[in-house]
Amino acid sequence: MFKENEGARTDISSLGEFGLIDHLTKDFDIKHTSTKMGVGDDAAVIFEKDQHMVITTDLLIEGVHFDLSYMPLKHLGYKAVVVNLSDVYAMNAVAKQITVSIAISNRFPLEAVEALYAGIKTAAKTYAIDVVGGDTTSSTRGLVISITAIGYSKEEELVYRSGAKETDLLVVTGDLGAAYLGLQVLEREKQVFKVNPNNQPDLEPYTYLIERQLKPEARKDVKKLLSDLDVKPTSMIDISDGLSSEILHLCKSSKVGCNIYEDKIPLDPQVISACEEFNMDSTTIALSGGEDYELLFTISVNDFSKIKANPHLSVIGHITNVTEGIHLITRANTKIPIIARGWNSFQETSE
Amino acid sequence: MFKENEGARTDISSLGEFGLIDHLTKDFDIKHTSTKMGVGDDAAVIFEKDQHMVITTDLLIEGVHFDLSYMPLKHLGYKAVVVNLSDVYAMNAVAKQITVSIAISNRFPLEAVEALYAGIKTAAKTYAIDVVGGDTTSSTRGLVISITAIGYSKEEELVYRSGAKETDLLVVTGDLGAAYLGLQVLEREKQVFKVNPNNQPDLEPYTYLIERQLKPEARKDVKKLLSDLDVKPTSMIDISDGLSSEILHLCKSSKVGCNIYEDKIPLDPQVISACEEFNMDSTTIALSGGEDYELLFTISVNDFSKIKANPHLSVIGHITNVTEGIHLITRANTKIPIIARGWNSFQETSE
Repeated sequence: MFKENEGARTDISSLGEFGLIDHLTKDFDIKHTSTKMGVGDDAAVIFEKDQHMVITTDLLIEGVHFDLSYMPLKHLGYKAVVVNLSDVYAMNAVAKQITVSIAISNRFPLEAVEALYAGIKTAAKTYAIDVVGGDTTSSTRGLVISITAIGYSKEEELVYRSGAKETDLLVVTGDLGAAYLGLQVLEREKQVFKVNPNNQPDLEPYTYLIERQLKPEARKDVKKLLSDLDVKPTSMIDISDGLSSEILHLCKSSKVGCNIYEDKIPLDPQVISACEEFNMDSTTIALSGGEDYELLFTISVNDFSKIKANPHLSVIGHITNVTEGIHLITRANTKIPIIARGWNSFQETSE
Repeated sequence: MFKENEGARTDISSLGEFGLIDHLTKDFDIKHTSTKMGVGDDAAVIFEKDQHMVITTDLLIEGVHFDLSYMPLKHLGYKAVVVNLSDVYAMNAVAKQITVSIAISNRFPLEAVEALYAGIKTAAKTYAIDVVGGDTTSSTRGLVISITAIGYSKEEELVYRSGAKETDLLVVTGDLGAAYLGLQVLEREKQVFKVNPNNQPDLEPYTYLIERQLKPEARKDVKKLLSDLDVKPTSMIDISDGLSSEILHLCKSSKVGCNIYEDKIPLDPQVISACEEFNMDSTTIALSGGEDYELLFTISVNDFSKIKANPHLSVIGHITNVTEGIHLITRANTKIPIIARGWNSFQETSE
């Protein structure tokens, strides 16, 4: 249903490794003066005076992290970049460079790799990122993508996971659960497609969910948003594996507990209606779904008035003493311990 | 013949992704004050005042870049780090940090991953490197390793591929061809082992070759060596794909030609004897073998007297005008154009 253009088909081996790198990177322009040397030497060279550098990396494996039967390669390239940038933004830093390494099997023609790079290039343009290097090689099976992202911040503006203090407020950007439900919709359509390839699915009620799964965005805007509001978070983490998993990381690093209020968790209307349709609990989806790439952070309770009117931000709870544990306060006012149910790649695949 | 210890066998999924990362990284110590935050947040944080940063990355795929039937996992971990550091040293920079991402299939028990990390840790200790982050995930098949290395240099000490000038001398460190022959020996023993598993191979005549293949070292020493000799290379590249491939890169970047003299190419006695045994031409092996991780650089002819007595360095040729092309001058004094015959991963595998 989401097939790549299968018209042209050029064998990658006709270019060779260096020919392929030249071909894929030739029209990547350099946007930052800090990028002194991009692709084309043994290493990239960067100079960013008096800034602290943050660096983060992700490894994406076909069949584990993505399914090319419903993830178009262009979207995959875009998402692979966004996922890494999200980690840079979670440090309250500005992302400026990435390296991109891919391993591809011979079943991919050049046109497929070009589609992947078109997505990478679109993300690089959208987020003002220089692609400064990488590696291109063959795989025995499937597609592997490894991206490393580099960002910068003044030391005093960096935000770690470890700074949350008792009485701080827990804040989340955007809304949660949509990306996971988008995946459920796509999986269902894949099964329908297998049975009846001529079926034309009506995906209109799920556009937001599918977009959140196939073309997520990272919260580049939050650093400036908070700076403009004169708020510095005390701790921050990005929500890649689901709210419950991230809240546990943050509380563990900060040596605190917390209470999250079920009725405060921000949900899009499509999430609520899709949960009804799939007979799923929307709170569970928001807590455990993952891939939302929103930011979860804590602020001093004194800053509440600065953020309370902002439509991008939802206060969902508060930090407690570590002895009080980590709990969800339900709509029925019962207190449930939060345990990690986020995504664990080691439990999902088999040899 | 080179089997890992198969005694204990702990299922990786029993730890989960975060448990595994904690377990593998818990005793990585931080060696550099520039590493402000290593593993444990959304991103690592680094601050190196007034230095230019170099960054390079490699992606290694089982069945393409390594064969676990004769590459012990500890050696593989070591080599994966060294390969990346070599690129940092080729910029005349000092390597200080790496990130390590791995994807592993369920067929690997925890003990195998521990062996891999033991090699990574040994390399980190030997080369004074901080492991500051990475990603650990599952693969559908085989092992994938992605390493990113970060180094530093004063701007004026960086050496690019592009600085070679006419009349400059071409210099190579160490000797060439041994790693490729080590691979040939190991491949041969693998075939013998298949036929007769009880055969005890006598690898004594090949110790240097096998060590160069299984436990290569990167030329960390060259920056200081050249600094002590008061020589700054005009251009530099590391020899990962074979001398012919690298000389073509260097000449292309510098827009020059060159002559290399066959009788000046440094060869270890074991390379010469193994070439006789395998009926291979030692010059071809040195030019096309790859994986030597020596450095190839150019210096001003005026610096010749400073380096000529150094046992680590061999002058193998000189830079010419670009119109003269790139040639090997044979022992018989004939002039042969050098073409790339280095390693190309896209021609070696099939789906």
